[in-house]
Amino acid sequence: MKIVRFKTGDDIAYGLAEAEGVTPYRGSPFVAWEPTETLVPWDRVQLLAPVLPSKVVCVGRNYVEHAEELGNEVPPEPLIFLKPATAVVGPDRPVVYPAVSKEVHHEAELAVVIGKVARHVKAEDASQYVFGYTAANDVTARDLQRRDRGCFGRAKSFDTFCPLGPAIETELDPLERLAVICRVNGEVRQAGFTADMIFGVAELIEFVTQIMTLLPGDVLLTGTPSGVGPVQPGDLMEVEVDGIGTLQNRVVAA
Amino acid sequence: MKIVRFKTGDDIAYGLAEAEGVTPYRGSPFVAWEPTETLVPWDRVQLLAPVLPSKVVCVGRNYVEHAEELGNEVPPEPLIFLKPATAVVGPDRPVVYPAVSKEVHHEAELAVVIGKVARHVKAEDASQYVFGYTAANDVTARDLQRRDRGCFGRAKSFDTFCPLGPAIETELDPLERLAVICRVNGEVRQAGFTADMIFGVAELIEFVTQIMTLLPGDVLLTGTPSGVGPVQPGDLMEVEVDGIGTLQNRVVAA
Repeated sequence: MKIVRFKTGDDIAYGLAEAEGVTPYRGSPFVAWEPTETLVPWDRVQLLAPVLPSKVVCVGRNYVEHAEELGNEVPPEPLIFLKPATAVVGPDRPVVYPAVSKEVHHEAELAVVIGKVARHVKAEDASQYVFGYTAANDVTARDLQRRDRGCFGRAKSFDTFCPLGPAIETELDPLERLAVICRVNGEVRQAGFTADMIFGVAELIEFVTQIMTLLPGDVLLTGTPSGVGPVQPGDLMEVEVDGIGTLQNRVVAA
Repeated sequence: MKIVRFKTGDDIAYGLAEAEGVTPYRGSPFVAWEPTETLVPWDRVQLLAPVLPSKVVCVGRNYVEHAEELGNEVPPEPLIFLKPATAVVGPDRPVVYPAVSKEVHHEAELAVVIGKVARHVKAEDASQYVFGYTAANDVTARDLQRRDRGCFGRAKSFDTFCPLGPAIETELDPLERLAVICRVNGEVRQAGFTADMIFGVAELIEFVTQIMTLLPGDVLLTGTPSGVGPVQPGDLMEVEVDGIGTLQNRVVAA
């Protein structure tokens, strides 16, 4: 199933994406919900970020070639950082290039959406805590990341720096060789496979939930493959993940 | 005024701390509220974290002597990082020493509670966005912070690693020489003054809101003075800030 959050007129709802449109649901998939008996045709649907996470937990350097392209060692354990919920935007929303940066990069990622309260979860049980998967762009002000010497707090936290979407696919197996692709203005810049992640989804859930409680709707970004690079105002970024779809966002000047 | 969040029986409310007890309010100070005509005596009050932030934004190395004690340079700009909301606990709640760390440190801090949506705020206007101030303990697994080479995501994010409280003081001037003190088992370990912060509250609000939107109830931790050091299970940590009160939390084994 592909779950979306969307706006139609003044109404915002979760719904099920279908060929002709979206079937709105009452309630939230993270609490209780049921389908309505309507169908909103696609031309009346404005997709929103498919979830409003309380937090976004990210993993750095989770693909060998990406660690190497930034001159970093492959970490012996996952290197985690947080993006604030205020950075989240949906499909087709602008990503604002901050005036204080001269080097904003795209980072295409597979994102895990957590389905229930998760703490001290073992890798073998991790799939029970996953609601589904979506695509993410871990937009990064690379110059500020360098300037802050590895403290990612500023570089990753600008408003609009966490596009998510277009949908949450609830029947995806990230152990498969799913392509994670980023195109800028139609040109492929990143193309990796989830099978090449250093730490897989289940291990990441075990690692993160040793540290903190993940809440329903929280999002875990699983790292970006090699090929990160700069974008400029006007550029169209597309993140495509096999089985999920394409998340596109245009960069705009501040 | 001293605003608290508290539990009495099964009820949770915000309220006004007074000599004999707490006057509960209906609603939330961040939206709309009004006093009730009751008074809950202190012996029936269990204080909770005085606010439930959507995010906690922190500043590293904001006191010269603390930067030096960890062998760090004084940063030319604020060095920011995030703690997840799931780390927040209230007064008198245990801080859990994680099994994966061998070196957990206390860090006493002045915390700013944001009162209204803040984005691109100038320092001279910053006080309009402040709801009040509370005390915080930016508990840190120092060994993991070193191991992650300055990426603070893991070391600062464990559940219970962000005690806040006991109250939000709405009439405090952080430009005054307010003492920020940490005691462990009654012995003073840290004693600094807010006047010695490298970047003051107004500058920090300007800096952070250039990056991200701060929401009502969000919390900004302003950095810790020198004297950070290890605690062990069983230790009682107390953070005292002039005009706010004392936030105490005992360390317990995982």
